[in-house]
Amino acid sequence: MDMQQQAIRQVIEAADKAISAENFDALMDFYAEDATLVVKPGMEAHGKVQIRKAFEAIAAHFGHHLKVRQGKIEIVHAGDTALVVMESLLDTRVTNGSPHTITRRATYVFRCENGRWLCVVDNSYGTGLLDAAQVPAVGSPDFAMI
Amino acid sequence: MDMQQQAIRQVIEAADKAISAENFDALMDFYAEDATLVVKPGMEAHGKVQIRKAFEAIAAHFGHHLKVRQGKIEIVHAGDTALVVMESLLDTRVTNGSPHTITRRATYVFRCENGRWLCVVDNSYGTGLLDAAQVPAVGSPDFAMI
Repeated sequence: MDMQQQAIRQVIEAADKAISAENFDALMDFYAEDATLVVKPGMEAHGKVQIRKAFEAIAAHFGHHLKVRQGKIEIVHAGDTALVVMESLLDTRVTNGSPHTITRRATYVFRCENGRWLCVVDNSYGTGLLDAAQVPAVGSPDFAMI
Repeated sequence: MDMQQQAIRQVIEAADKAISAENFDALMDFYAEDATLVVKPGMEAHGKVQIRKAFEAIAAHFGHHLKVRQGKIEIVHAGDTALVVMESLLDTRVTNGSPHTITRRATYVFRCENGRWLCVVDNSYGTGLLDAAQVPAVGSPDFAMI
């Protein structure tokens, strides 16, 4: 793993810690202004305002028990752009309070702006998106479903 | 699918036609100068010279019978960047000459430069990269293996 890849990995680790701590102010520093988050297959959040709102809804959805960890990671780097494929481990609790871990194979796009790697596309569903259909925007009636 | 997504889809269709026709001059027009191609898990080609060489080796590997088609596609668009997840269908022939289709779930990153969408990261293995290990560069002894 080269220096750029190491830098990207550290950004993702810091972002995962911010999600786990529900520190959404810190979390937004890791996103580009024009970033897109795939909230779930079929639903996207565009820009920091919508992305923050989505993370607040996600935290509530998981009963404020969500902790995020990295598994295996591969980074394909090309100039100021990088594709990240990564195992994302979501430690949650089921209804009776027992711990439950969800493993996803995520895909992220990072862009280097003024020497900092920022997340431009955050798609924790990876190629699983192909099993989904349309993508309504945040603000549509479906957004209430998360 | 919006206009930008339609434009990216058309670029991929044209690139797939160029691969199927072994028209590598035309194919290189679809890549950014600093693009990275994942030749196979564990092997990357960087820049147009290496990418072209890799496609020539891939064509030979498939006995010049490779035809590439698109299956389902999802495009996550963020400013001048887009993540594409796509079923890529590779029509090949097995040793006895019978047709054989390989289906991959690919991930691509596109960047818009001067109004044109160019491929920056071409990873036809998608999140399957996580099953692989190290990534030697083209020119290393392993590159002869494709």
